[in-house]
Amino acid sequence: MLNSAILAEFIALLGVDRVFVDPETLTLYASDETPKSCLPDGVLFPASHDEVVAIVKLANQHHLALVARGAGSGNVGGAMPVIGSLVVSFECMTRILEFDPANRLVVVEPGVVTNDIDALANSVGLMYAPDPGSGAYCRIGGNLAMNAAGPRCVKYGATRDHVLGLRAVTGDGREIRVGGRTTKYATAYDLTRLLVGSEGTLALITEATLKLIPAPESIATLRICFSSNASACAAVSRVMAQSVVPSALEFMDRRAIEAIREYGAAEGLPAGTQAVLMVEADGVAADVPRQIVALENALAGEGLLEIQSGFTASDIAGLWIARKSLSHAVKKIAPLKINEDVVVPVARLANLVNAIDGLGKFHRVPIVSFGHAGNGNLHVNLMVHADDADEMVRARACRDALIEAVLGLGGSLSGEHGIGSEKRAYVGRELDASTLAMMRDVKQLFDPRGLLNPGKKLPDV
Amino acid sequence: MLNSAILAEFIALLGVDRVFVDPETLTLYASDETPKSCLPDGVLFPASHDEVVAIVKLANQHHLALVARGAGSGNVGGAMPVIGSLVVSFECMTRILEFDPANRLVVVEPGVVTNDIDALANSVGLMYAPDPGSGAYCRIGGNLAMNAAGPRCVKYGATRDHVLGLRAVTGDGREIRVGGRTTKYATAYDLTRLLVGSEGTLALITEATLKLIPAPESIATLRICFSSNASACAAVSRVMAQSVVPSALEFMDRRAIEAIREYGAAEGLPAGTQAVLMVEADGVAADVPRQIVALENALAGEGLLEIQSGFTASDIAGLWIARKSLSHAVKKIAPLKINEDVVVPVARLANLVNAIDGLGKFHRVPIVSFGHAGNGNLHVNLMVHADDADEMVRARACRDALIEAVLGLGGSLSGEHGIGSEKRAYVGRELDASTLAMMRDVKQLFDPRGLLNPGKKLPDV
Repeated sequence: MLNSAILAEFIALLGVDRVFVDPETLTLYASDETPKSCLPDGVLFPASHDEVVAIVKLANQHHLALVARGAGSGNVGGAMPVIGSLVVSFECMTRILEFDPANRLVVVEPGVVTNDIDALANSVGLMYAPDPGSGAYCRIGGNLAMNAAGPRCVKYGATRDHVLGLRAVTGDGREIRVGGRTTKYATAYDLTRLLVGSEGTLALITEATLKLIPAPESIATLRICFSSNASACAAVSRVMAQSVVPSALEFMDRRAIEAIREYGAAEGLPAGTQAVLMVEADGVAADVPRQIVALENALAGEGLLEIQSGFTASDIAGLWIARKSLSHAVKKIAPLKINEDVVVPVARLANLVNAIDGLGKFHRVPIVSFGHAGNGNLHVNLMVHADDADEMVRARACRDALIEAVLGLGGSLSGEHGIGSEKRAYVGRELDASTLAMMRDVKQLFDPRGLLNPGKKLPDV
Repeated sequence: MLNSAILAEFIALLGVDRVFVDPETLTLYASDETPKSCLPDGVLFPASHDEVVAIVKLANQHHLALVARGAGSGNVGGAMPVIGSLVVSFECMTRILEFDPANRLVVVEPGVVTNDIDALANSVGLMYAPDPGSGAYCRIGGNLAMNAAGPRCVKYGATRDHVLGLRAVTGDGREIRVGGRTTKYATAYDLTRLLVGSEGTLALITEATLKLIPAPESIATLRICFSSNASACAAVSRVMAQSVVPSALEFMDRRAIEAIREYGAAEGLPAGTQAVLMVEADGVAADVPRQIVALENALAGEGLLEIQSGFTASDIAGLWIARKSLSHAVKKIAPLKINEDVVVPVARLANLVNAIDGLGKFHRVPIVSFGHAGNGNLHVNLMVHADDADEMVRARACRDALIEAVLGLGGSLSGEHGIGSEKRAYVGRELDASTLAMMRDVKQLFDPRGLLNPGKKLPDV
């Protein structure tokens, strides 16, 4: 617990301007996007690697839990405090430490906004490929912690694939530098990718060396309307069975389209539309039309109602209107969204969508599914009312059955949101006992006192 | 030590046909491509995951070291036995456990020959991207152990980027399944990529789920001759500063060209050629010519003597003749090759090549450099006579200075060959003490008795 003597030590370390214990601040930092909260004892804003080291050492001395936080835009409770913990916000560590276009890399502090990295890269014809939906405000440290990805990952790989090296502080205050600055590396054990996706439970990342790649010259978008979920899923399989890898392959299911219609944002969708794919191609301007033709050929098939294409920024924006309205539209169905971010091998997407349909009917829970179909990664949203006890019981049973279905299809609990506090009860269903024990040992190695983000990622013993 | 009672236990486990202790077999398995050897006490040929588990358990019971081995084609002593150890050869574990083109994955045992995986993928229009030089005979388990790569990695990423999941047995006999079957994954800690490149020191890999990607329809090759190392390196930087990423960007330095000339394989290289780049582009047939034009434009500059292009299989083979002769050609310089597989950020390649030139002159050691320039990954070969004590002293000093130069340029000891027994003395120069201690702790966690490939990867304490 943060008593006044310990508080004084943190203030001595960071100054009064970067240590907060007032109720307003504590409330602001009590939750992420998950509808749950827990007040921390304090919120710390380190401004440098050395300050993070000092914080971890003080926390060890006084046995205080530390919860790393970027923008708090996660939705599995990954940045949710536990009782008696201190939030370590990286919002003051926003420096670009090095920008090296010739070597296609950038070294950043964890508080840099993700899209700003991409924008910086764009200024010299490069790009930072991962593009999480929250990119405009989330922090790169949070992205790395969750291995959060986005649509472009179907072509360019997940966040983990774009990290060359890290500087970090382990739970017992050890400073490590892992990986390097090169695109090939076979020297030490790969702790870089181990830390990516470890959700702040192994170490606090204080610097990241990120890989940049050439930005595409041109982008084109297709919006494809289908008469059923099944016909859209079949089209996804056809797209992923030919050689043009799209730079986005997004899916919205029947219930999502209904929600958009009810919200009044379905203008232009032909009658009978029950599922929509958004497909993008990128590359040199001369080649994008060829890719689009190949993608259109793959998309053509049973149940196709319409393909609209956009080659200009305004046309592309128009095609995305329905999709962008979705997060608002679903709120009309029910106030609470239980968001499962499941992933299956891409050719099993149809099975998953079919299973979801059946589960929603059986448990009488409205389920809206959409997401990164090209990776088999769906966001499955159970829309419920927190005050409807009966519905909540059915929703939990439905969620349980969904997880079973996903695992039965060779899939995994999370494609890009992580486990956090919300999904850890399910981890033991996916991992066998021996593998789970090894994961616990890894946690123990990096954080022997269990101070980093307790109650996250791994299930209780 | 393997006494007759223990030997009987291994024979009871595997049968007499898969346990060898005869001098001929021991000699065959006493070394990899490194000119050093050490006889093991025995060679074991497990045929299944369960047999590997049983071997590790027996080894723990009798405190016997286990040295995993694929084809023995490594060149850092990674598969070299230590005194009293048993070699675990994966040559009998060659099954394709699952080939799933629709989900773009293949599940293989570690003894499958690497190029066979690519060939299988090619049969349905896919490819396994990593293409180590030894691909025709090396085993995938060895590739994974070393994170061994190849030319195509400049475009498609290293071996580590193509592994979705692993099944493995840790040093204390624990069976783990890490990663999964999906291209996005944010569930458990990423032990998959940790095991890749761990050189058989953490766990024995018994199954690997590998990612496949669409195979290019067409490939074209450029052979570009330059009047100096510096002009070739400048061209590498220009290529990596524009947006067409080549599928190979290989470099041969002045001394390599001299060796090829002396070997009589320089036919067609214009007079004055002192460095050569081999550049490939791949993609759809309609787009490859555009890529080639862009690459030619980037390659054009000071010191360019000639660009030859090949668009057919036979023309391409012709262009590669000089390059393919190199490994034979260098043997004429001196019998012993000390092969350093260093890597630097790609824009520092010119500095590295320049430093190598100076070091060779200063220490009077012939050095032939070539390799994967697009990744900044050079194979720097110090050509020496093992029986020339004075030369060996100079070579060691030269090697030392080379490592310092590489680290000074922000590079790393190994890009794709790994550390093995040969380079581990240098690891402490690249990693700081705290990071190195963490690496040792990881080793301790996976292999508490230190039975897996002792004396490799990490330096002695």
